[in-house]
Amino acid sequence: MNSPAAGATRQKLIEAAIDLFRRHSVAGTSLQMISDELGLTKSAIYHHFRTRDELVSTIMEPVVDELEKLVEAAEAQRGPRVQAESMLAGYVALAVAHRDLFPILSGDPGVADLLRQRPRWAAIVKRQADLLAGAEPGTSGQIRAAIVMSGISSAVGVAFDGVDDRELRDELVTTARRTLNLRTPRR
Amino acid sequence: MNSPAAGATRQKLIEAAIDLFRRHSVAGTSLQMISDELGLTKSAIYHHFRTRDELVSTIMEPVVDELEKLVEAAEAQRGPRVQAESMLAGYVALAVAHRDLFPILSGDPGVADLLRQRPRWAAIVKRQADLLAGAEPGTSGQIRAAIVMSGISSAVGVAFDGVDDRELRDELVTTARRTLNLRTPRR
Repeated sequence: MNSPAAGATRQKLIEAAIDLFRRHSVAGTSLQMISDELGLTKSAIYHHFRTRDELVSTIMEPVVDELEKLVEAAEAQRGPRVQAESMLAGYVALAVAHRDLFPILSGDPGVADLLRQRPRWAAIVKRQADLLAGAEPGTSGQIRAAIVMSGISSAVGVAFDGVDDRELRDELVTTARRTLNLRTPRR
Repeated sequence: MNSPAAGATRQKLIEAAIDLFRRHSVAGTSLQMISDELGLTKSAIYHHFRTRDELVSTIMEPVVDELEKLVEAAEAQRGPRVQAESMLAGYVALAVAHRDLFPILSGDPGVADLLRQRPRWAAIVKRQADLLAGAEPGTSGQIRAAIVMSGISSAVGVAFDGVDDRELRDELVTTARRTLNLRTPRR
């Protein structure tokens, strides 16, 4: 097997996996189901991914890396309101850019398991929630952050396929700014 | 097997199922896993539920019935803003009363499948979204309703175990009213 063909198979495996995750959740999808979907043998898939977690990590890794950069950029801003605005704009752009993935990954127990196993990932998500909650610390802020994070992840999903990226981004930012009480700057 | 014992087994099956759904998602949980968890034979579980869908339906049916009553009560109100307020208050109370269930069910592909198979259920969820979106029809309103519905379902989850029911209800209603732009009545 030459390298471009292996790369193409790897990409096909990832695409088939995302499609199956959408239909059966991450936890409900086995490597066997993915190889069956593509008519591959199990050894063909093991050549690329030894476990489902390894496959999910491969899909999530670049998204978490992007999220980390957004968290760092927001933390570099001054003042909790500006930090929250920065985090929100970045998160909405990321979610809309990965419309196919966010509704699948958010709230899936298989993904939650991976987050628990990877303290670096869990810490990034925690920093994101703290930034979004920042303008209002305590339980109130954390509840708002939770609504915004999971609400946005779901809202970029299939129900809004007809809405273009820019409109969806604008609507989500406008709505989430209200949710987070960021409308009228207090100084 | 006498009837009280059968009822107790049925209840144990439901509780074990909810616990497994939390860990593995609905789609990732088989009847076999549930019977293994309880040390029962597969025939013992088949005596109560022939398929996983039947079990999930048994868990969801009373919640959907409650939701339907809330939708009907909201639709009986006059004016889209009052209808949205009524639907929101009812939905938050329902989600907080079923804290263990809502974060599991919302967004699970196994549950989404069941909704597609049951037009009555899908219609109730659609009416709920329309009521929440009511104050602002079109895409904007639908996106806000989606954020509120999935945001609330997730936010009642494990992260806020320490927050009591009343505080959680108040926070969710206050936040979601802002999300839905219900703060200042326009007449």
